[in-house]
Amino acid sequence: MTTTHMRQEINEIPEAIARLLQGSAAVLAEAGKALAKADPAFVATIARGSSDHASLFLKYATELVAGRAVASLGPSLASIYGKRLRLDHAAVFAVSQSGRSPDIVSMLEGATQGGALTLTLTNAAGSPLWNAADIKIDIAAGPELAVAATKSYVSSAVAGLAVLAHWAEDASLLAAVNGLPEHLSKALALDWDVMVPVLEQAGSLYVLGRGPSLAIASEAALKFKETSDMHAEAYSSAEVMHGPVALVSPGFPVLVLAARDAAERSVVDAADALAAKGASVFVTSSLAQRAHRLPFIETGHPLTDALALIVPFYGFAEALSRRRGFNPDQPVALKKVTETQ
Amino acid sequence: MTTTHMRQEINEIPEAIARLLQGSAAVLAEAGKALAKADPAFVATIARGSSDHASLFLKYATELVAGRAVASLGPSLASIYGKRLRLDHAAVFAVSQSGRSPDIVSMLEGATQGGALTLTLTNAAGSPLWNAADIKIDIAAGPELAVAATKSYVSSAVAGLAVLAHWAEDASLLAAVNGLPEHLSKALALDWDVMVPVLEQAGSLYVLGRGPSLAIASEAALKFKETSDMHAEAYSSAEVMHGPVALVSPGFPVLVLAARDAAERSVVDAADALAAKGASVFVTSSLAQRAHRLPFIETGHPLTDALALIVPFYGFAEALSRRRGFNPDQPVALKKVTETQ
Repeated sequence: MTTTHMRQEINEIPEAIARLLQGSAAVLAEAGKALAKADPAFVATIARGSSDHASLFLKYATELVAGRAVASLGPSLASIYGKRLRLDHAAVFAVSQSGRSPDIVSMLEGATQGGALTLTLTNAAGSPLWNAADIKIDIAAGPELAVAATKSYVSSAVAGLAVLAHWAEDASLLAAVNGLPEHLSKALALDWDVMVPVLEQAGSLYVLGRGPSLAIASEAALKFKETSDMHAEAYSSAEVMHGPVALVSPGFPVLVLAARDAAERSVVDAADALAAKGASVFVTSSLAQRAHRLPFIETGHPLTDALALIVPFYGFAEALSRRRGFNPDQPVALKKVTETQ
Repeated sequence: MTTTHMRQEINEIPEAIARLLQGSAAVLAEAGKALAKADPAFVATIARGSSDHASLFLKYATELVAGRAVASLGPSLASIYGKRLRLDHAAVFAVSQSGRSPDIVSMLEGATQGGALTLTLTNAAGSPLWNAADIKIDIAAGPELAVAATKSYVSSAVAGLAVLAHWAEDASLLAAVNGLPEHLSKALALDWDVMVPVLEQAGSLYVLGRGPSLAIASEAALKFKETSDMHAEAYSSAEVMHGPVALVSPGFPVLVLAARDAAERSVVDAADALAAKGASVFVTSSLAQRAHRLPFIETGHPLTDALALIVPFYGFAEALSRRRGFNPDQPVALKKVTETQ
């Protein structure tokens, strides 16, 4: 068969990131400086779907790098409840590939009028969302034809990381971000197909992570649903042990996304504990004793290490979708532009 | 068989709420006044498990009633990453039944030292969490012997609502809160057993809501996992239609929690749309055309209407657990005091 749009767009991720970092370098630096100058008391995000998962990744990154709490705001606050929050001490990021969801545009307009410093990360320069923001960042992912977002997710996350690195003047993070085109090319070549025999027939699974890697797990779980019709749910590797572990019977599949960060040991301990219960556990760490180890790349920074995990996952998800008899480009009932009321 | 602890504690909810509203009336009012005086730029919450679901409910309530954005902070920020956030413009709520999770205590101590106005909602006066907070609220739920939390969830949520009503001087909300002991007694008598034939053998389901009722859906999904070994996942009724709807095949069970609020129409439209796809959909609304209607009570305010939905749900969950051959008092692998590192 010919290559799917999804596979092509996954392959394009390294060049899309290179294009973003080159083409938007000036605005990424300016955005960081504007945040440093505004010195917001907190940050809020507005997004849906994969863009909301990119926002969740940026929440952890913002808390760890800039030391500011991040609130995720449901777009329904404006569209359904007609409520405007007090956001004059806030910086507000709206993340949307299409830049056209009316409720997200309306929320960001309200935030700008309310005195927040507003930023948009969008793939649609000139869109209504673009026009609603103080600072407009083109993620420059190029056309995304597959219904399931891949490269726009990575581009949004990288754009946000670059802004944060400039805000906090974090040279180590900035260097790691600038190294991503090269490192993500290597990530494309990683092979996670060892999971296929376990997941080919499975209906339900958990995807675990902690901190930044939990955000990556959320995105992975959505892709399992969208492209392989599997009930995948993301959980904190700490939280899962309290009640949701009830579901983990022998053979239950668990994908554990560990990054090279302070949480790695605790995440791997959870993976090994679930494997000891007989679950089929796969984990991106060489520390694992019982769980199956998946290959990963090191990128020079804990946050880019976590983000890089999504690339081999996307490749795996596209292949799994075909193995399960689906067309990854035509997920059930997915519409690209979602105009929620 | 004798009544389970879980059933007994569900039955105790109305009297526990009456005890809270009477016994803690002074501190609930003082907490509201302290918040009004501090006039925080935003609110942050720290919690895990069912307490985190109570916090999610209070997030929506705070945004709608007090107009302040609410950030949910992962306890791992302190315990794993050693990061302290800037919280001097914040009010911080730590919610914990036991008041003894070391990472939550550590986060709240850091917030208090960092200049935030800190509050705890806990069932354990004198606990380490109690001592770490500026304002100490005893939710007075009484001993909770069942492993799955029920009355402590409702007590935490009601305590938070009462504080909010005082903060915003919202007489209508305060009246509805004070009417809860009577209304929740009626909610105890509601019968949702019409769902039993569909859920008795099911392995996977969605629990949908929007705004405050999405928070209730999160708690319901956890209970399905804990007590009936079912893969239940909570979703926004708006968000689910974008990608996760892929999973909704004919017969797939969906519980939709609609409240008497501005979102009811859109939530019911989603329920009916899923029912039209052949899903087995149950919804707490008389507006439904295709989905099965579940009974509910009206409590005089949209937020207490949403919260009251959990009471018939808990009763149903306890009965379903027994029907599926489990003991609701002994969920698999649940420990009550969770000391996460």
